[in-house]
Amino acid sequence: MKISSHSQHALKITRCKLVSNKQSWVIAQCNPKVGAISENTQQVLAAIDLAQKNNAHAIVFSEMILTGYPADDIWSRVELQQEIPTALQTIAEHAKDILVVLGAPRFFKEKIYNSLYLLKDGVCLGSYDKQCLPNHNVFDECRYFTPGHNSALIFNYLSWKIAFLVCEDFWRVQPVKQVKMSGADLLVVINASPFDSHKSAQRRKVWHEKIAKIQIPVLYVNQVGGYDDLLFDGDSCLLSKKAEVLFQAPLFASGLYQLVIEKQIDQLHYKSSQVLLEKNCFQKNIADSDEARIYHGLVLAVKDYVHKNGFKKVLLGLSGGIDSALTLTIAVDALGADHVEALFMPSRYSSELSYQLAEEQATHLGVHYSVLNIEMLVHAFDMALRSRFQGQAEDATEENIQARIRGQLLMALSNKNHALVLTTGNKSEMAMGYATLYGDMAGGFEVLKDVYKTMVYALSKYRNGLNAEPVIPLPVIHRPPTAELRFNQVDQDSLPPYAVLDQILEDYIEREMSAEQIIAQGADKVIVDTVISTLHRQEYKRQQSALGPRVTTRGFGRDWRFPVAK
Amino acid sequence: MKISSHSQHALKITRCKLVSNKQSWVIAQCNPKVGAISENTQQVLAAIDLAQKNNAHAIVFSEMILTGYPADDIWSRVELQQEIPTALQTIAEHAKDILVVLGAPRFFKEKIYNSLYLLKDGVCLGSYDKQCLPNHNVFDECRYFTPGHNSALIFNYLSWKIAFLVCEDFWRVQPVKQVKMSGADLLVVINASPFDSHKSAQRRKVWHEKIAKIQIPVLYVNQVGGYDDLLFDGDSCLLSKKAEVLFQAPLFASGLYQLVIEKQIDQLHYKSSQVLLEKNCFQKNIADSDEARIYHGLVLAVKDYVHKNGFKKVLLGLSGGIDSALTLTIAVDALGADHVEALFMPSRYSSELSYQLAEEQATHLGVHYSVLNIEMLVHAFDMALRSRFQGQAEDATEENIQARIRGQLLMALSNKNHALVLTTGNKSEMAMGYATLYGDMAGGFEVLKDVYKTMVYALSKYRNGLNAEPVIPLPVIHRPPTAELRFNQVDQDSLPPYAVLDQILEDYIEREMSAEQIIAQGADKVIVDTVISTLHRQEYKRQQSALGPRVTTRGFGRDWRFPVAK
Repeated sequence: MKISSHSQHALKITRCKLVSNKQSWVIAQCNPKVGAISENTQQVLAAIDLAQKNNAHAIVFSEMILTGYPADDIWSRVELQQEIPTALQTIAEHAKDILVVLGAPRFFKEKIYNSLYLLKDGVCLGSYDKQCLPNHNVFDECRYFTPGHNSALIFNYLSWKIAFLVCEDFWRVQPVKQVKMSGADLLVVINASPFDSHKSAQRRKVWHEKIAKIQIPVLYVNQVGGYDDLLFDGDSCLLSKKAEVLFQAPLFASGLYQLVIEKQIDQLHYKSSQVLLEKNCFQKNIADSDEARIYHGLVLAVKDYVHKNGFKKVLLGLSGGIDSALTLTIAVDALGADHVEALFMPSRYSSELSYQLAEEQATHLGVHYSVLNIEMLVHAFDMALRSRFQGQAEDATEENIQARIRGQLLMALSNKNHALVLTTGNKSEMAMGYATLYGDMAGGFEVLKDVYKTMVYALSKYRNGLNAEPVIPLPVIHRPPTAELRFNQVDQDSLPPYAVLDQILEDYIEREMSAEQIIAQGADKVIVDTVISTLHRQEYKRQQSALGPRVTTRGFGRDWRFPVAK
Repeated sequence: MKISSHSQHALKITRCKLVSNKQSWVIAQCNPKVGAISENTQQVLAAIDLAQKNNAHAIVFSEMILTGYPADDIWSRVELQQEIPTALQTIAEHAKDILVVLGAPRFFKEKIYNSLYLLKDGVCLGSYDKQCLPNHNVFDECRYFTPGHNSALIFNYLSWKIAFLVCEDFWRVQPVKQVKMSGADLLVVINASPFDSHKSAQRRKVWHEKIAKIQIPVLYVNQVGGYDDLLFDGDSCLLSKKAEVLFQAPLFASGLYQLVIEKQIDQLHYKSSQVLLEKNCFQKNIADSDEARIYHGLVLAVKDYVHKNGFKKVLLGLSGGIDSALTLTIAVDALGADHVEALFMPSRYSSELSYQLAEEQATHLGVHYSVLNIEMLVHAFDMALRSRFQGQAEDATEENIQARIRGQLLMALSNKNHALVLTTGNKSEMAMGYATLYGDMAGGFEVLKDVYKTMVYALSKYRNGLNAEPVIPLPVIHRPPTAELRFNQVDQDSLPPYAVLDQILEDYIEREMSAEQIIAQGADKVIVDTVISTLHRQEYKRQQSALGPRVTTRGFGRDWRFPVAK
């Protein structure tokens, strides 16, 4: 039977060669490429091969595994209407004696659904359209999909009754009620649930609430990887009917995890697990702290952005300050020192300490390192503009010229050697526009874009704690932050203390509190008003900024949509 | 009675001091500022004053006049829940003896509605929640609003029965049926309907279809102005029950237009109109051609972006080519020559012809003009990078260095003199990435961002036709396009002929045709495949590009959402 994704398939009872009280299910915590249907299909087929070799009964992939999530306007492209059904057919034919559960779009009567498919032995045994489409925060599903109008998919497989839902469905009331009424043995939820530092806890809270209602064990499979401004942590789990975590896949790792589950007296019990395949940056348990999760998330984000864009090397300006020091460390952890180049570009304002610290860190990490003094170029611009600027006082213009020379040098090296430039700004700076457009903002990926300055310090200390020798020299952490664009400049000349600033930003941006509410908490009115008006006035810079991975509950990416002209 | 926007008001019969068969209604085709509730309220109050002085019975403002449209995440901000009801109360108290119809959000039980209010003599006489929320193309209303569940608002005013809808409602089946069943004398539709070159025709088609169903005259009031990447044309109209345009407000003008309408034998008839106030760039009838509409739209877009961002002056690099020549002309039409500065920045590759043409146009238009040779700076970068580039062939790196020096000089002048830099790229270049990031792409507003190169030529010819003397020197139009970044370079070394390229881009981007479909129409397969893959590969440049006004049915702004990393 030819698979078509153009019609909703009636459920069929599958051939049950072997009815056993023990089954092995594979969690496929994968990292698909957005829009690369063919590559993603190959990834799915390879995973199925490995699961088959290990005699698995079923393998579960994440939501929208074939397109990657979010695929945005790719979902609407007409090409998909041929590519997806073809891919599903190939996968179904490959799924000999194994049930494949995966997410992909379904096209029907000029509508698109966010669907789950059950594929086995050349046929589609069932499909289910996501009922609850998230359209807030980073999600825009209503732009692309029509909500499904059928109940949770219930399917009998090898004598087990299994319910299926897609992501947001499990966070809402109605679909969970449908599952409860089904009396299923197991609920399988496929997801594309992005990371933020509170997400792990938030998920567990929802799991507790929902599982308390249904009293059914849950197999939760999530996507992993970096996607432009989004980051997915995986965190796939098997949960007991009491919401205990029986098995958890590592965060930020892609892998295939085979779980043996047994049915005894009408209840499922987790027996054992084995890793069939794993690609991981860090083997340590990183679920321990915010810093650990964010740090290793950023490492994966850099790795994915660089590789998915076809680069092998990165390049960054190292200043002797903490932002570039942390960015360098993350880049080395993501790509290896041999694929990272650091450039120190001093001017007359660079202190001896900056020279020392930049060199010390670069040498310690073993990255390619060089020094390129910008004084001659600063002088050339002075000469070129002298007659135009005659009689006008020095101001931010001259500071920006230095930052832009540095940006231009990095871009020249990037162009010549095909190395992606990492920018080194942080969220507090991005919020306040404390950065130069086309200067230190020049580059392809802003690693710390969603990391407040106070968290930059915390991450640096966390990373230093992982090795016996600190990878970020301690004076970098302890010196006062400075842009070194004029003599004796420090950040606190222009900005409130970072602890104060970051608290206001978090309250306003993430908690969506008004100025009034923030002041009522005890913050200074003048500072609050200045911070909020500066934040909005600097929208024009963020509008042209590089992408960077979201690690808070609200980044300056797709979940921050404010106008420039007001 | 205190106005609250937290509850839906029951309709009330208004005091009818004077029942007449003749009424005068004012179309308020206004240009609000996004998020500036207080300024927009002042604009509304001033318009009411003028309408009252002219004894108008009613005044109709556009959808979301108090917040501007689209206000994006501003709509979700908690501050609005106080500001909007306060503004509505102020307006209602101001509306002595005149019915005020306007759009604003309504907050009720943690939900937000896109609503229409009827205000008069200190009270809210009725409100209506938009039923049909557009969430495709440039629209994201499902992100913010809950759809209304009540029928079209029907209200008796001075013995006329009037129906009210909001924008998208009038394009759909159900709300139009509700109006038909009401047997109203007049349907008032308030809108925030963005411009594109096909929009006028498309609106008229919809008006014909819908009015044929209801057989009721329609008063259509739309917003006007530039909003980041969107442009609104106004095009407010009074339409007869046969869909004839009885009155049309000029495109791209903001103004107050008073219409006298009479009821005879149960039918409304348009009698006369007068202009109470008008701010217009061009008095010519610009509804005549695509070129006229796009050109004058761009003029308004520049004017609004510059002024709404608090600038008085603009600055651009004039190259002797057609893109910068057209951008300069638009800037002068928008702001006046005295507020425009052009900088010619020649290198060794600049031809004598470019020198001549840049100077000729700048002199003819009377803008501030200067020449700043970049050779010394190119040499300085050569020196700085010589040891790094030793043994490597020249490539695009050296071309980008020139473009970035120019970008940096413009930004330095912009910083020093607070003049906004206009970038001069066009849509064909943006699609192909035929531009240098932080080089010619540096700047605040890209005027031709959504104008294909073939349309750049058409607009130049159109503008030249408006004056006796051409404002764009004819050789600029007739010379082969070149970036002049190496000897004898022409665009067609790197790109297909623009007529071929633009057709493929339009088919792929706007008509959403697949490569297969475009080739089936007769296009060359190699060219089509190259164009489409280049288009997607260059997403990283567009991601950091300046905003520019959308004038086609699909721009590279909020209606183009493709990933960078794939």
